[in-house]
Amino acid sequence: NVHVALLSLEPKSLSPIDWSMSDVVSYFTAAGFPEQAAAFRTQEIDGKSLLLMQRSDVLTGLSIKLGPALKIYEHHVKALQKIHFEVEEL
Amino acid sequence: NVHVALLSLEPKSLSPIDWSMSDVVSYFTAAGFPEQAAAFRTQEIDGKSLLLMQRSDVLTGLSIKLGPALKIYEHHVKALQKIHFEVEEL
Amino acid sequence: NVHVALLSLEPKSLSPIDWSMSDVVSYFTAAGFPEQAAAFRTQEIDGKSLLLMQRSDVLTGLSIKLGPALKIYEHHVKALQKIHFEVEEL
Amino acid sequence: NVHVALLSLEPKSLSPIDWSMSDVVSYFTAAGFPEQAAAFRTQEIDGKSLLLMQRSDVLTGLSIKLGPALKIYEHHVKALQKIHFEVEEL
Amino acid sequence: NVHVALLSLEPKSLSPIDWSMSDVVSYFTAAGFPEQAAAFRTQEIDGKSLLLMQRSDVLTGLSIKLGPALKIYEHHVKALQKIHFEVEEL
Repeated sequence: NVHVALLSLEPKSLSPIDWSMSDVVSYFTAAGFPEQAAAFRTQEIDGKSLLLMQRSDVLTGLSIKLGPALKIYEHHVKALQKIHFEVEEL
Repeated sequence: NVHVALLSLEPKSLSPIDWSMSDVVSYFTAAGFPEQAAAFRTQEIDGKSLLLMQRSDVLTGLSIKLGPALKIYEHHVKALQKIHFEVEEL
Repeated sequence: NVHVALLSLEPKSLSPIDWSMSDVVSYFTAAGFPEQAAAFRTQEIDGKSLLLMQRSDVLTGLSIKLGPALKIYEHHVKALQKIHFEVEEL
Repeated sequence: NVHVALLSLEPKSLSPIDWSMSDVVSYFTAAGFPEQAAAFRTQEIDGKSLLLMQRSDVLTGLSIKLGPALKIYEHHVKALQKIHFEVEEL
Repeated sequence: NVHVALLSLEPKSLSPIDWSMSDVVSYFTAAGFPEQAAAFRTQEIDGKSLLLMQRSDVLTGLSIKLGPALKIYEHHVKALQKIHFEVEEL
């Protein structure tokens, strides 16, 4: 899931740390959550903020439906953070 | 409780991982919570999301009454997750 | 406190596991919380649900005032759960 | 802070366990929080409830501003509980 | 980030413990969060309260957008607390 969504972004944007708010919206739209993607812009979440999000922030701080929120956190936010911090360690 | 409710579903749906939102609603209706079942659809919860739910998600994220919510989590969501992850391990 | 309130209930109802919603309301009325007792009925809490309640459920899930809620949890819900699980272990 | 506020109360009231709701209001008024003191009465908090309060109860359960709430918990509620439980142990 | 923002304050104000509410507002304005700075004044947060803030207080207690809140906590509140408690230990 993460890789398909990443492919939709510009090559320079492979690490979330440099994503703009628009990159975040593009990512979640490409990931299959077009309705929820707008909530990230409303809450002014860029790549740096995305890397700081915890489970409860995604579930209650975005005012999105619980079902998609659970998948967004588990399959995307957590996965992107894992990728980022693994790359950091290299 | 879980087994009676499971019997009401289609045979192909024995693992929550493949349940659609309608299967989730059918399960909780059969489990004795017809009024609360609709909240799972409102929050767009399919089987994959159901397997990711924690106690506080059921109690506060579904906007259902506390009494039924406590039983739904303890006797159903937790039980279904246990069955799923035990089957996973085989 | 718990024992005085228990005495007001029917002899068959000494274990919360079998309490109806009305038994729960009677218990908290007898325990000195007539105003808060109604909130348990509103939230459809019977004895089985009562045994599953945690501190935050009583404090924020019942929409009752904080002062009485703190005493209801500490001196009653917790105490009833302790009695129940001690009897269970015999 | 705690000692100055305690001096404003009646001598019989040195342990929060016996404080009425009015004693609680008097204490927080004397402690420099006259605006927030009323919230303790609104939530029907006497000395026994005060001794049961946790950080999140003070911060979100009283509907008072965050700045004063942080000081009320850290410098007063926590301190009063410490004094009480130290006296208890003698 | 912290150092640039600190430079905008008066020399006497290098430790948050002595900051007034206005110093807190000046700090977050200088730190690049002019829109969010006002929320600290609304919640009556001076330097002493700032040193007591936890992650959830910043994220949900200030009623500010989630993206900026995550950065304010992680890069500023946490960093200022670290500086303060390190200086304390000398």
